[in-house]
Amino acid sequence: MSWTIKLEDIDDLARGSALLGTGGGGDPYIGGLLAKEALRRHGDVTVVSLDEVPDDAVIACISMLGAPTVMVEKLPSLDEIMSPVQELSEHYGRPITHLMCIEVGGVNSTIPIAAAAAMNLPLLDADGMGRAFPELQMVLPTLYGVSASPLAYADEKGNIGVLRTINNAWGERIIRVAAVEMGCSIMLSAFQMNGVMARKALVPDSLTLCAALGRSIVEARVAKTDPVDGLVETLGGRSLFGGKVVDVERATTAGFARGRATIIEGDSTFTLSFQNEHLMAELNGVVLTTTPDLIMVLDFESGEPITTEGLRYGQRVRVISAPADERWHSPAAIEMVGPRYFGYDTEPTRFDGSVRAGVPIADSDGIA
Amino acid sequence: MSWTIKLEDIDDLARGSALLGTGGGGDPYIGGLLAKEALRRHGDVTVVSLDEVPDDAVIACISMLGAPTVMVEKLPSLDEIMSPVQELSEHYGRPITHLMCIEVGGVNSTIPIAAAAAMNLPLLDADGMGRAFPELQMVLPTLYGVSASPLAYADEKGNIGVLRTINNAWGERIIRVAAVEMGCSIMLSAFQMNGVMARKALVPDSLTLCAALGRSIVEARVAKTDPVDGLVETLGGRSLFGGKVVDVERATTAGFARGRATIIEGDSTFTLSFQNEHLMAELNGVVLTTTPDLIMVLDFESGEPITTEGLRYGQRVRVISAPADERWHSPAAIEMVGPRYFGYDTEPTRFDGSVRAGVPIADSDGIA
Repeated sequence: MSWTIKLEDIDDLARGSALLGTGGGGDPYIGGLLAKEALRRHGDVTVVSLDEVPDDAVIACISMLGAPTVMVEKLPSLDEIMSPVQELSEHYGRPITHLMCIEVGGVNSTIPIAAAAAMNLPLLDADGMGRAFPELQMVLPTLYGVSASPLAYADEKGNIGVLRTINNAWGERIIRVAAVEMGCSIMLSAFQMNGVMARKALVPDSLTLCAALGRSIVEARVAKTDPVDGLVETLGGRSLFGGKVVDVERATTAGFARGRATIIEGDSTFTLSFQNEHLMAELNGVVLTTTPDLIMVLDFESGEPITTEGLRYGQRVRVISAPADERWHSPAAIEMVGPRYFGYDTEPTRFDGSVRAGVPIADSDGIA
Repeated sequence: MSWTIKLEDIDDLARGSALLGTGGGGDPYIGGLLAKEALRRHGDVTVVSLDEVPDDAVIACISMLGAPTVMVEKLPSLDEIMSPVQELSEHYGRPITHLMCIEVGGVNSTIPIAAAAAMNLPLLDADGMGRAFPELQMVLPTLYGVSASPLAYADEKGNIGVLRTINNAWGERIIRVAAVEMGCSIMLSAFQMNGVMARKALVPDSLTLCAALGRSIVEARVAKTDPVDGLVETLGGRSLFGGKVVDVERATTAGFARGRATIIEGDSTFTLSFQNEHLMAELNGVVLTTTPDLIMVLDFESGEPITTEGLRYGQRVRVISAPADERWHSPAAIEMVGPRYFGYDTEPTRFDGSVRAGVPIADSDGIA
């Protein structure tokens, strides 16, 4: 069922996206500004569910790639957001008919809204992850054999490129160093696919979910009920910890914002390890949850999601976990986004603390 | 006047190119292998002088970009050499009609020969420098406002890209990090221009000169005369030093082969500083010659040119200097390729030790 994103929906969408962005995917305030500006100038955006998208649609993502820490100082213009999509269309020789979000995040869910408004294109109610991950190849379409190439990218200075790589991991390698050189943040359009593949490879209804989550946080605040309880229930997750941030180490290296935050409450010490996104939660040295399941940090009182770059000494926060799309637990996915890929020597631990392995994506559905 | 490059010309051409490559531009043995393979399989190459090239010709360079040290282990295939030219043609929407050498060097003069043979295209008797320089923007066409963009690049794995940048220095920045990530050596096709611009901006007759220089080294050897004396005379240069290499420091960093060589004879100490190419020659701490003039190192007896990566402890060598194309002494050129750009705190010192400044390129001819 199609629906319309209006100006007044943006705050909820950005808030809910930032939550599912698990600390990454960019600042929802920045993302919201961009989307609102686009909607004010170009009108509402039509959102199309996966079951409505035509089989022969030409779909591509538009997203920011780089360290989201940088984006706060380098707000992209609508021209910068549109140019890689236009470049991709020209390179592909057919116009893009639908835009999609490659991931869920405060910026990477709202940039496609801005682009859809400015280009008058429908936006899919779906995304490539159901959360955010830091590297280009880390999307469910990779597991279905969808190539990120040709990928088009642009910076705010007017530099623009198209790249075709032999696999998505090579796309990540080359585009990452280019992004670092171009100022640590670029706009990227890639993962061109048709409607048939989109129905297989994407996570459905993610914009609808983001809007609902964002709205529920505000509604709970108005109703003076606990905003976090509702989120945990909606997501089928659990509460991991609540306490005060006493240390945040971080460094923007190799195009990523990497680091570790320490949160305490009484005698308990809780640590969050992140690389753009929160990837591992430990309580007193015991692993509670790791990537690919979702680890989300919220303001203790207001329930506002806090991005990894928004974490500050002294904040009182709550941390919750929730299950990722089950396909992220398939063996090929764990190899790509499991804790060991990121250098954490631990089993993939689910949102509920279990270590149950996932099953391969069926041959008929995907390649892994 | 057009002429033909045949199999038996390659050794002379590669040797002469390596000489004018001033230590950079790649190993003439490797370059020669590539060109010979192409000529054996595809036949001779027609070389066209600048005064013959049609005004509306579509000319582009094909070259290796990266650390030439790496190329010894990573010999490109003909497919890899052709693919960026084909990509550039497609992106530009018109077929490339003529190939050119962007610089003179053991590999970067012979790769265009290989490409011209394999693609059955004429090759210009010209190049963009009259020597070799390490960075993309360091070509005379930059001084005439010719954009390197669109630039197409490819590696041996099959990764391929097209990039358009706001100026040639940005092209260098982005393509350099991509090249490092892609294995420190890529093939590049860029600097598309027409015949009118080629006549203005390129150095004429450089392949003819390379062939003559290469031939004279061999002829002198056969005639048992001094090969170096003849080169100095032909180039209008001077002999700087002769002695034994006693130290070579080098590192392949940020995609370049940087270093310093020390050569002694009696009480005299001569040092060569290089970054892919020889950029400064000093005798007992006194600067004799710097970039942009040519500093060339040859084997003491045979007169074979020695590249910076070929320099070894114990070699007996002779070092000569020669004037660069006078446009390299214009103020804008000195800013781009003078010794201070490379971090050597000294005046640009000409081949004969003088420090006479050059004049701006006339407005009617160029932009600088």
